[in-house]
Amino acid sequence: MKAEIVAIGTELLLGQIVNTNAQFLSRECAAIGVDVYLQTVVGDNEHRLLETFKLAASRADVVICTGGLGPTQDDLTKDVLAGFVGRELIIHEPSMTAITDMFQSRGIHMVESNRRQALMLADSDPLHNETGLAVGIAFTYEGTHFILLPGPPKEMKPMFSKYAVPWLQTKMTDEVPLYSKMLKFAGIGESNLEHQLLDLIAAQTDPTIAPYAKEGEVTIRITTRAQSAEEGEKKLQSTEEAIRSRLSEHLYANHDVPIEAVVVQLLAAKKLTLAVAESCTGGLLGDLITSIPGSSQPFLGGIICYTNALKHQLLSVPLEVLEGEGAPGAVSSETAVLLAEHISGKTGSDFGISITGVAGPSSSEGKPVGLVYIGFAQKNKPTQVIALQLSGNRESIKHRAAKSALYQLWKQLKDQ
Amino acid sequence: MKAEIVAIGTELLLGQIVNTNAQFLSRECAAIGVDVYLQTVVGDNEHRLLETFKLAASRADVVICTGGLGPTQDDLTKDVLAGFVGRELIIHEPSMTAITDMFQSRGIHMVESNRRQALMLADSDPLHNETGLAVGIAFTYEGTHFILLPGPPKEMKPMFSKYAVPWLQTKMTDEVPLYSKMLKFAGIGESNLEHQLLDLIAAQTDPTIAPYAKEGEVTIRITTRAQSAEEGEKKLQSTEEAIRSRLSEHLYANHDVPIEAVVVQLLAAKKLTLAVAESCTGGLLGDLITSIPGSSQPFLGGIICYTNALKHQLLSVPLEVLEGEGAPGAVSSETAVLLAEHISGKTGSDFGISITGVAGPSSSEGKPVGLVYIGFAQKNKPTQVIALQLSGNRESIKHRAAKSALYQLWKQLKDQ
Repeated sequence: MKAEIVAIGTELLLGQIVNTNAQFLSRECAAIGVDVYLQTVVGDNEHRLLETFKLAASRADVVICTGGLGPTQDDLTKDVLAGFVGRELIIHEPSMTAITDMFQSRGIHMVESNRRQALMLADSDPLHNETGLAVGIAFTYEGTHFILLPGPPKEMKPMFSKYAVPWLQTKMTDEVPLYSKMLKFAGIGESNLEHQLLDLIAAQTDPTIAPYAKEGEVTIRITTRAQSAEEGEKKLQSTEEAIRSRLSEHLYANHDVPIEAVVVQLLAAKKLTLAVAESCTGGLLGDLITSIPGSSQPFLGGIICYTNALKHQLLSVPLEVLEGEGAPGAVSSETAVLLAEHISGKTGSDFGISITGVAGPSSSEGKPVGLVYIGFAQKNKPTQVIALQLSGNRESIKHRAAKSALYQLWKQLKDQ
Repeated sequence: MKAEIVAIGTELLLGQIVNTNAQFLSRECAAIGVDVYLQTVVGDNEHRLLETFKLAASRADVVICTGGLGPTQDDLTKDVLAGFVGRELIIHEPSMTAITDMFQSRGIHMVESNRRQALMLADSDPLHNETGLAVGIAFTYEGTHFILLPGPPKEMKPMFSKYAVPWLQTKMTDEVPLYSKMLKFAGIGESNLEHQLLDLIAAQTDPTIAPYAKEGEVTIRITTRAQSAEEGEKKLQSTEEAIRSRLSEHLYANHDVPIEAVVVQLLAAKKLTLAVAESCTGGLLGDLITSIPGSSQPFLGGIICYTNALKHQLLSVPLEVLEGEGAPGAVSSETAVLLAEHISGKTGSDFGISITGVAGPSSSEGKPVGLVYIGFAQKNKPTQVIALQLSGNRESIKHRAAKSALYQLWKQLKDQ
C-alpha cells in the first residue's frame, strides 16, 4: 500500500517548527508495511491545499494529513477536502458534546468557531481525540483512503496509533507484514562498507539491504515481508549472518544504538572500569560515554589535558617529551602512550584511553590537521597506540576521534 | 520569489531521520525574502525523483534540493536532474583533486564510486563543500533556478549560507532586499523572554520581531526591508536597542554565535584562563568550549570527576563531605565550591568552574533529577555557587547545566 503524508501549516514553511509528525508517521507506516513514498508540506492556503489533495489522490492509496483541524479561520483542511470530494460537513455529536462540556467545566465562554473542531465529512469515520478537541476523520474516496489528524503531536500520535492504524489495517487485509532490523557499524566508512557488500546489495531481493548514513555512524537496514514474526526473524537472521561473516570486526549491534551504549554495557557486564585522558577532544569522549544511563558504574572519569602544562602537571608527561628540539611533542604516539598509562594508573581503572591530535583549523607542532593518536592502556597488557589521519572540520575531527576510541575499546571488549 | 524545497532520501520516508534541513532552509529563505510555499520529501527512486523535479520546475522560481549527492548507488540526484534538463555530467576538477588528496592523505583505498561526488552538470556553477567531499551545484533551467545541496546538515548548512545564498541573491535583483539580525539570549527561557517583549512583538510592523526556537537556545530575529544596507542597519539598530534596554543581562550577542564562542573571545581578550571540574556533565562543558577555534589559549583543561573516588583523589574533596550520615554529598553546594576552588588551584587558572548534579534518569543521594550546583571560583574573590532545578531528559539536563555555567562566566566577564 502506497502512502503520501501531507503536513498542513504555514509555520512549517516558515521554518518555525520541525516536521516531526512526518517522521513519526513514516516510521509507524513502515512498521505496519505501508510504503511512504512521498511527504509534502503545504501552507494554510485554499488553492494550494486543493492542488495538493488532487495530486496526492492521483498518486497514493492512502493520504495521511496532519494539521488544519483547529477552530481558527486558517484551519481549512476539512473545508477544502469536503469541497474536493463533494461531501457536506456535518457535526459529530459526541465531539460537540465534549467541546461544550469542556468549556462549561472551565467556565470559559465558548466562541462559535470552536464548533468547527467537531465537524466531520458525511460518510466518514470519526477518529477519537483523547488529548484534544478536534475530531479526526477517516474515509475512502474513489479508491484512495484519507486520514485526517490534528497537528499537535500529543494529539496526533495517540489518534494515529490507537484509531487510525486499526482503521487502515482493515483496508490492507491482503498485505503481508513487514519486518526489519538495523545493523550498526563502526571503524568503517559508508562507501567502503557498501563496496564490501556490493554483490549482496546488487543481488538483494528479499530481504532488502539498504545502507544509510547518520552523522558519524554507518548503518544498514535489512527488511523483509513474512507471514509470521518467526519467519521474518529467520529470513533477517540469515542475511545478518551473511553480512556479519564479512564485517564482524565492524558490526557492533543489530539494533539502533550508538557504540558508546554497547561499550558501557560490555564494561558493566564484565565489571571493568574506564578512565580517559582527552586533549584534542576536550571532553567529548567523556560526554558521549556519560550520555548513557548507567555509565557511572564503569566510567570513573578522566582528565582534560588541553595544554602541555596540564599534560605535565596532572598526567606526569615529561616536559622533554612534549617540548623542545627533537621532542616527539604533544601530538605523538609517545605522549598518547604516557597519557593512557598514567590516567589508568592515577585512577586505578582497568582501561585508560588517551586522545591527542590536531583538531584544526590550523596545524600544530608542524603536524597536519586531522592527525590523531589514540592510546590504549590495559592492566597487565602492553599499551597500544594507533595513529589516524581524519578529515573534516574541527567538529567532525573531534567526533571521529572520540568514536574511533570507542571502536578500539569495543574491539577489545567483544572478544574478552 | 517562490521556492520549493525538495529533500531526497529514503531514510526520510522510512522515518529514520527528521527533515531538519527543510526547517533550516525555510528559515534562511524567509530571512532573505524568498517565500517557501512547498516542501517535498522523495525517496532515492529515479522515476519519482524525475516526476518531483518536473512538478517543482513547473511551480517554483527556485528549487532547493538536499541529499543524493553522495558516492553510493542510491545517490541519484545529479543523474536524474542531468537527464531532466538534458545536460551531461562533467568532473569538477578541484573537487576531484580534493577527493583523491583526502584518500591519499589518509592512506585509504579510494573506490571508483567516490569520483561521483565530484560530478557537476555542464553549464552549472559549483558550490564549494567546506566540510565534505560532494560538490554542490547551482544552475538555471527555463527560468527556474536549481540549487543542489548535500544531505548531511554539517555540509549543507555552510554550503547554503556561504555559497548558495549569494548565488541566489544575484537572481533577485528586482526585489527590495531584506536585512535581518539575530539576537542571542542566555539564562532566560523563551516564554519568559517573549513575556518581557510582549508589547514590542504585538506592536511590531517594521522591523518585525520573531522568536526563533533552537535546541537549548533562545534567539530572536529582527527583520526589515530597506533600499540600502545602511538604512537597514539603522532600522535594526533601534529595535535592537529597545530590546537590549530590557534584557541586557541576557542578550549576549547580536549575531548567530553560541555563548561559548563569546566566552572564549572575552577570556582571550582579557588574557584570562579557565579550568573546569565536571561531574554530571561528564566532559560536555569542555567539549563545548573546545569546539571554538582558539580556545586553546584561555582553556587549560580540567578534570572529569564522575565518581566520588575521583572527586576525592584528583580534586581533594574530603570523603566526609561526599559520603556518610549527614554529609552534604557529591551533589551539594559544599562540593561544588571545593571542586571549583581546587581545579583552579591545581591548574593555576584565573577561573575555576565546577558542575555537580543529578542528570537522571534516576535520582541520586535522595536528590531529585535535574538538581545541579555550579561552582564558580575566581582568584582573590569569594567563590560563588548557584543551584538550579533543571527539567528535561538526561541529555537536556547535561546541556542546560553546561550552558548555565557558560552564562555565569559570561556575566562575570562582560563587565570586567
